[in-house]
Amino acid sequence: MSRRSRRKVQSGRVALRAGLPPAADVFVGPDRDDPVDVHLLEYDAESLFEQKSVRPAELRAFADDPRITWIDVDGVHDPERVKEVCNAFKVHPLVVEDILSLTTRPKSEEYDGYLFLSLKIVTLEEAIDFPIFKTEQASIVLAPKAVLTFLEGSNAVFDVVRERLRTNKGRGRRLEADYLVYALLDAVVDGYLVALDQVADHVDQIEDGVVGGSPDPDVVLLVHHLRQELLAFRKNVVPVRDGVSAMNRAPSAIVRKQTLLYLRDLHDHILLAVDTIDGLRDRLSGALDLHVALNNNRLADVSRVLTLVATIFLPLTFIAGVYGMNFDYMPEIHWEYGYHFSLALMTGTVVSLLYCFRRKGWV
Amino acid sequence: MSRRSRRKVQSGRVALRAGLPPAADVFVGPDRDDPVDVHLLEYDAESLFEQKSVRPAELRAFADDPRITWIDVDGVHDPERVKEVCNAFKVHPLVVEDILSLTTRPKSEEYDGYLFLSLKIVTLEEAIDFPIFKTEQASIVLAPKAVLTFLEGSNAVFDVVRERLRTNKGRGRRLEADYLVYALLDAVVDGYLVALDQVADHVDQIEDGVVGGSPDPDVVLLVHHLRQELLAFRKNVVPVRDGVSAMNRAPSAIVRKQTLLYLRDLHDHILLAVDTIDGLRDRLSGALDLHVALNNNRLADVSRVLTLVATIFLPLTFIAGVYGMNFDYMPEIHWEYGYHFSLALMTGTVVSLLYCFRRKGWV
Amino acid sequence: MSRRSRRKVQSGRVALRAGLPPAADVFVGPDRDDPVDVHLLEYDAESLFEQKSVRPAELRAFADDPRITWIDVDGVHDPERVKEVCNAFKVHPLVVEDILSLTTRPKSEEYDGYLFLSLKIVTLEEAIDFPIFKTEQASIVLAPKAVLTFLEGSNAVFDVVRERLRTNKGRGRRLEADYLVYALLDAVVDGYLVALDQVADHVDQIEDGVVGGSPDPDVVLLVHHLRQELLAFRKNVVPVRDGVSAMNRAPSAIVRKQTLLYLRDLHDHILLAVDTIDGLRDRLSGALDLHVALNNNRLADVSRVLTLVATIFLPLTFIAGVYGMNFDYMPEIHWEYGYHFSLALMTGTVVSLLYCFRRKGWV
Amino acid sequence: MSRRSRRKVQSGRVALRAGLPPAADVFVGPDRDDPVDVHLLEYDAESLFEQKSVRPAELRAFADDPRITWIDVDGVHDPERVKEVCNAFKVHPLVVEDILSLTTRPKSEEYDGYLFLSLKIVTLEEAIDFPIFKTEQASIVLAPKAVLTFLEGSNAVFDVVRERLRTNKGRGRRLEADYLVYALLDAVVDGYLVALDQVADHVDQIEDGVVGGSPDPDVVLLVHHLRQELLAFRKNVVPVRDGVSAMNRAPSAIVRKQTLLYLRDLHDHILLAVDTIDGLRDRLSGALDLHVALNNNRLADVSRVLTLVATIFLPLTFIAGVYGMNFDYMPEIHWEYGYHFSLALMTGTVVSLLYCFRRKGWV
Amino acid sequence: MSRRSRRKVQSGRVALRAGLPPAADVFVGPDRDDPVDVHLLEYDAESLFEQKSVRPAELRAFADDPRITWIDVDGVHDPERVKEVCNAFKVHPLVVEDILSLTTRPKSEEYDGYLFLSLKIVTLEEAIDFPIFKTEQASIVLAPKAVLTFLEGSNAVFDVVRERLRTNKGRGRRLEADYLVYALLDAVVDGYLVALDQVADHVDQIEDGVVGGSPDPDVVLLVHHLRQELLAFRKNVVPVRDGVSAMNRAPSAIVRKQTLLYLRDLHDHILLAVDTIDGLRDRLSGALDLHVALNNNRLADVSRVLTLVATIFLPLTFIAGVYGMNFDYMPEIHWEYGYHFSLALMTGTVVSLLYCFRRKGWV
Repeated sequence: MSRRSRRKVQSGRVALRAGLPPAADVFVGPDRDDPVDVHLLEYDAESLFEQKSVRPAELRAFADDPRITWIDVDGVHDPERVKEVCNAFKVHPLVVEDILSLTTRPKSEEYDGYLFLSLKIVTLEEAIDFPIFKTEQASIVLAPKAVLTFLEGSNAVFDVVRERLRTNKGRGRRLEADYLVYALLDAVVDGYLVALDQVADHVDQIEDGVVGGSPDPDVVLLVHHLRQELLAFRKNVVPVRDGVSAMNRAPSAIVRKQTLLYLRDLHDHILLAVDTIDGLRDRLSGALDLHVALNNNRLADVSRVLTLVATIFLPLTFIAGVYGMNFDYMPEIHWEYGYHFSLALMTGTVVSLLYCFRRKGWV
Repeated sequence: MSRRSRRKVQSGRVALRAGLPPAADVFVGPDRDDPVDVHLLEYDAESLFEQKSVRPAELRAFADDPRITWIDVDGVHDPERVKEVCNAFKVHPLVVEDILSLTTRPKSEEYDGYLFLSLKIVTLEEAIDFPIFKTEQASIVLAPKAVLTFLEGSNAVFDVVRERLRTNKGRGRRLEADYLVYALLDAVVDGYLVALDQVADHVDQIEDGVVGGSPDPDVVLLVHHLRQELLAFRKNVVPVRDGVSAMNRAPSAIVRKQTLLYLRDLHDHILLAVDTIDGLRDRLSGALDLHVALNNNRLADVSRVLTLVATIFLPLTFIAGVYGMNFDYMPEIHWEYGYHFSLALMTGTVVSLLYCFRRKGWV
Repeated sequence: MSRRSRRKVQSGRVALRAGLPPAADVFVGPDRDDPVDVHLLEYDAESLFEQKSVRPAELRAFADDPRITWIDVDGVHDPERVKEVCNAFKVHPLVVEDILSLTTRPKSEEYDGYLFLSLKIVTLEEAIDFPIFKTEQASIVLAPKAVLTFLEGSNAVFDVVRERLRTNKGRGRRLEADYLVYALLDAVVDGYLVALDQVADHVDQIEDGVVGGSPDPDVVLLVHHLRQELLAFRKNVVPVRDGVSAMNRAPSAIVRKQTLLYLRDLHDHILLAVDTIDGLRDRLSGALDLHVALNNNRLADVSRVLTLVATIFLPLTFIAGVYGMNFDYMPEIHWEYGYHFSLALMTGTVVSLLYCFRRKGWV
Repeated sequence: MSRRSRRKVQSGRVALRAGLPPAADVFVGPDRDDPVDVHLLEYDAESLFEQKSVRPAELRAFADDPRITWIDVDGVHDPERVKEVCNAFKVHPLVVEDILSLTTRPKSEEYDGYLFLSLKIVTLEEAIDFPIFKTEQASIVLAPKAVLTFLEGSNAVFDVVRERLRTNKGRGRRLEADYLVYALLDAVVDGYLVALDQVADHVDQIEDGVVGGSPDPDVVLLVHHLRQELLAFRKNVVPVRDGVSAMNRAPSAIVRKQTLLYLRDLHDHILLAVDTIDGLRDRLSGALDLHVALNNNRLADVSRVLTLVATIFLPLTFIAGVYGMNFDYMPEIHWEYGYHFSLALMTGTVVSLLYCFRRKGWV
Repeated sequence: MSRRSRRKVQSGRVALRAGLPPAADVFVGPDRDDPVDVHLLEYDAESLFEQKSVRPAELRAFADDPRITWIDVDGVHDPERVKEVCNAFKVHPLVVEDILSLTTRPKSEEYDGYLFLSLKIVTLEEAIDFPIFKTEQASIVLAPKAVLTFLEGSNAVFDVVRERLRTNKGRGRRLEADYLVYALLDAVVDGYLVALDQVADHVDQIEDGVVGGSPDPDVVLLVHHLRQELLAFRKNVVPVRDGVSAMNRAPSAIVRKQTLLYLRDLHDHILLAVDTIDGLRDRLSGALDLHVALNNNRLADVSRVLTLVATIFLPLTFIAGVYGMNFDYMPEIHWEYGYHFSLALMTGTVVSLLYCFRRKGWV
């Protein structure tokens, strides 16, 4: 679905939502038909238990388990299901509202006993005309021993983390819930960098085309489009940067000190993403400026040629016109060398004009 | 009434006001004829009492009632009435001056025992030529057990809150006066988002027109107008954002801790509004830049065609002119194949010019 | 006197001043001939005493009086007189230097026992060509029981306050010296708003002219001029805003707590002035951009017409030129329908060109 | 010496310097031949002792004297001499390095027992083509009882202060070393204002030329040059402003409280200089924008005339061309009023074209 | 290798890296074949011990030595080797990951017992077409008695420091490890200044070309390229500035107080580099603006000439065309002075047009 059409669906909902009481449990986003799947993963350093399509009623039991519980809800278009999961972990209704609304801005908020994070998963889609960023919402609730994740769409971005837990590679399973959240965030930010890398390839092509003098005919449209996309992207990344930075400065009770080193590392990666976005935007602006400058140069060349040709041939044509007049008494007409005189006159005109042009530096 | 004419009325009043002592009880805004209505709503979790057209004398009694009292004054063009209501609740004369002046900037100020909020209600009106934002002032006084609201125009924006209190949906009636103010502010901010959504539709149309190459002929005027409107809108929203943010950081004695979660949520909504404004402005700028760039491209195409045609036909016309001269002695004229020679000369000229153009990449 | 010529006078003085010891009592500004008048006003809640042309020697007595003393010095071009007044109240030589120099930046400084404020009074003058801001310096010294004011020019701006004291309207006479200073500042800021209101009328006219397509021929010059004037204005208002804001945050011993509410109100008015300046500058920029965009559109139309006409008539003229050649052997010339053939050829050319143009969307 | 050539000399040295150990005593600047002069001035309120060409060996004695000692070193191209002076007062090698390098950025640094200030003396030189700022480095070391000054070039800027000390005008000689430094800084900043005043005259001329429609042909080059010069100037003034501001906020042990009032005054003067620079740059930008806008207007006029002339005469010439064709059978040719018919046709064409133009608003 | 191709290699790796666990020991950068060399230098004030190609196993011994140990690893493309060195000094895996990844942003981070610095070494390479900055990563680990340096490429930039340690010039060998790090950083920053100096020469050439009216034909491309390069450079320098500034403000346990003076000096040098970058970018923008302005002036001249020529000759050609018509009855044709009449008519036309042009100021 294109960004435009998605925005329209959402905006329709924004209008619909206005008038509802705060913290109303209503899904604000495009409709979907597939059922919402709840996927559970419970582990400690020694063992791992996994279950698909968990029923909410079963969740209560896991909430009080001393092992780390990760509940991954795929799809937030079923308010009832989301609400049941949240209730099992005593999540505040305002958080449920944020999870259900796809217009929620990326943010991190601390509540009594848990931390709520909302952010966007971004991937690049090669649409028919121009590449567009596909933006899907991810909500994360971090409790001391449990992590809830709510994804708008597919959960492919978390597969890496899941796989690492299963194979127990790295130190993942020995660490606490806050480290799991760090790993999930890291996967999302890595996805940002991959998407930006793909954009960089487009920017390379644009720059090569412009510098080489043969840009894509739609280069203006394309640059405009990519700049808008990157701007929208930036607005999704900057709050994440600020949120992680705030966690670093004023760590909460839920994020332990050992995890801070990793958060600092994550912060660096987000800074790299922001830098890359700014750099790409700068390069696009630069390429467009260059394109305009080179085009103007070309247009100036064209104008100069027109002026030269007109300035040379208009006087010549005039001379020819004069001797094409039909007056009865025109002495030059009857000179023996009149024709040659006229040709000499024309040649003289051309030579003096060319001399003028050369002195002005136009030829 | 259009923004322009309203501004003029107000500015006339600004000049009138200069010279008055501070805290003078004078209405500064356009004249209105309809009477000012005072509407009362008193409630606690169990019961709700409602009365229209309350006389100010009756208000004193409600001021000391332990139940939550909401007094809604519709219209501020009757200074006496406003003053009476304010006096019943011991509101400072400077606040009364702010309520009466429609040029008051949005702000939040804390006084001894109550909090004063001034903000603007914004709706989009589809005027004859271009859509304009209709901006009406709302003043809110929050005392521990009472809320006073003063509206410049219609109170439709608060209907949702009133209805929720009547039907006792949500947790509204169980909560205190500060929550009521939050609900009112939320209704106002929801109105911002609805208005921005309507603007977004216009921006969509503009973008589609520009990208598709067939923009509205007045697209430049329209973009200019919308940008100015959004800028004025932004100036009304940003102080609200800063006020709510300040309340969050340094909560006053009147706003209780339980309400802070809701204020944070409100803050998020305002940020969304500001982001949306900035985004729309960026998109409008982008659309205009694109429009200019595409227009320049088209103009360059036109200039190139002119140059090609002139550069080809001026020499040809000159050649024809030469052989149209009437000299007695012109050898070529009498050649048997002179005509064909001249045509060949012209063809040769065209071919070499086209060759030049192709090499320069103009054809 | 125009801004330009004033600046020149002052700048000459700046060069003159360089080399003097600090705190030298030298007047730095344009020369004036009229005598400096010292006007005294002493009051408490019950009574008011007024005296014009006070001799400095008399001032000492008033300095120690428990009633509020307001000494208004009209004109600062007589260094001796200013110095005498200042000495009577033990004002620091650096302050005297600032009062005497008309290039002093607006500022507020706290000294032992008094507060020094320097600011500019701004009025709009309709000059022959363009409106200009007339900027006059006002210096205010606030001691616990006395207020000294030094005005570069006329004291009309303070008439309102004086009149209010005389008639004892409002609460003015019951309040202390700091409230008097607030009232004076309020009068100055009201003057800003009036001047800006007059500029707004000019901006309205400019906008209407540009949007309606028939701007003033000097619109570019006028916008440029107004933008520069507003920029200079802004530089005089912003330090006042910052000074009042600093007084609000860190109130001095001289400004009492009761006056702070009024200072906050004053701060709001200054913010309104700054906002108005920024808004007017934005509108002027917008109007200029619009003017340029519309002009470019018109120019593009002109170029397009030129291209169409040239592209149609150059080939036609060429065809006519060909059949105007005088070769002996030109078969078409002697055809019975040669003339009609040539006309048909021309018509065909026009039709195909128009077809091309329509396909390119130029017609 | 022009800015360009100086920069090149310096930059060559920068490359040379790279690789030296930190705090190396090497002069980094253009070569000079004249000897470095050390000038001594020792004073208290009663007496003053002055000596030219002091030998460094003599300095040790003065360093411990209770009277105020001012040692003025003219020229820093002799590293040995500078080093000897600094050693006599136990100045840190890093400071010596900064004194010797002419690329040192303006700054103020506190060391144990003394304060180090580096700044630039700026004067305007009327070069052959454009005025340029001549920038010379001044380094000041402030010890409790001694002031060392190191000047890159002539010490004329300090003459005022010297003269005031000799004649004992003002309070100078009664005050301490920190006041002497203030007086020196004030002299430098006064020099800034004088130089800016001279630039303002150039800007006046440029503005008058542009507004009057007859700018200097090199106005674009001149504006560009002045803007760059002012930008470079600004970079030399801003660190001075920040340094003095920092001293004001966190006064060191060496700057006594009594001197702070004077520093605040100095700060004001620097702010005035920065404001003036910004104002001049704004005015230059404005003048250039205006120049471009007016030029574009003129160019548009030219294009419009071209279009009108071409659009009128191309059809006329075509008609004339048609009736200049040599077909045997052209009925109009033989009409009795054919000639008049053709003239009427041409007149009709002109009239209808002019009517079109008028309707489009081009005539 | 050009910047473009390097970026591509790296970006490929970024995509590859996504999905790895945090702190994975994988080299992220272009492949290299040469072995990684570990170079050791151990010293105190009296003696110095040097060893090339140290085996990691030997390092453990040096780690606990009371003398200062400097281990310089040339090349980071061998993860195992880098890991071994880091393990010998108990460096955190996240630091190892940063050392191995060439996309690490410049930063300084404090860990338990050591400080980690990452920055870029920049040199200017004169490529075939345009000069480019070659950027190589340097990582520095500062422990109380040891310094580890990891260089992406050649270690030439550190030769100066090494040589100074060997010859024991300056105070280097008497100082601690933190001073050694300062000396290394100083060498890197000196390299920045040298590279900027070389760019300044290019900017000088560009400016001279533009002002002189005969710029390099590729001046637009060159300016665009240099601006992008300087922007990328700036992004590598600014974090270094911020890092050193942070160390100055909040010195760690590892950087001793005595070294702070040197860090302040280093900070100054970095500020100089940033200022130089900004200055060069400003000058490039200025040069480009000037180039565009001058080009526009030239283009306007060309257009004016075209208009003059066309406006003069089109009417003349028309007159000639009229008298070239073949009507049987054209009275002027048979006048005795018809020809002279027509020539007079043409001369009159030219004279009146020239008069018009002069009045409009076009000639």
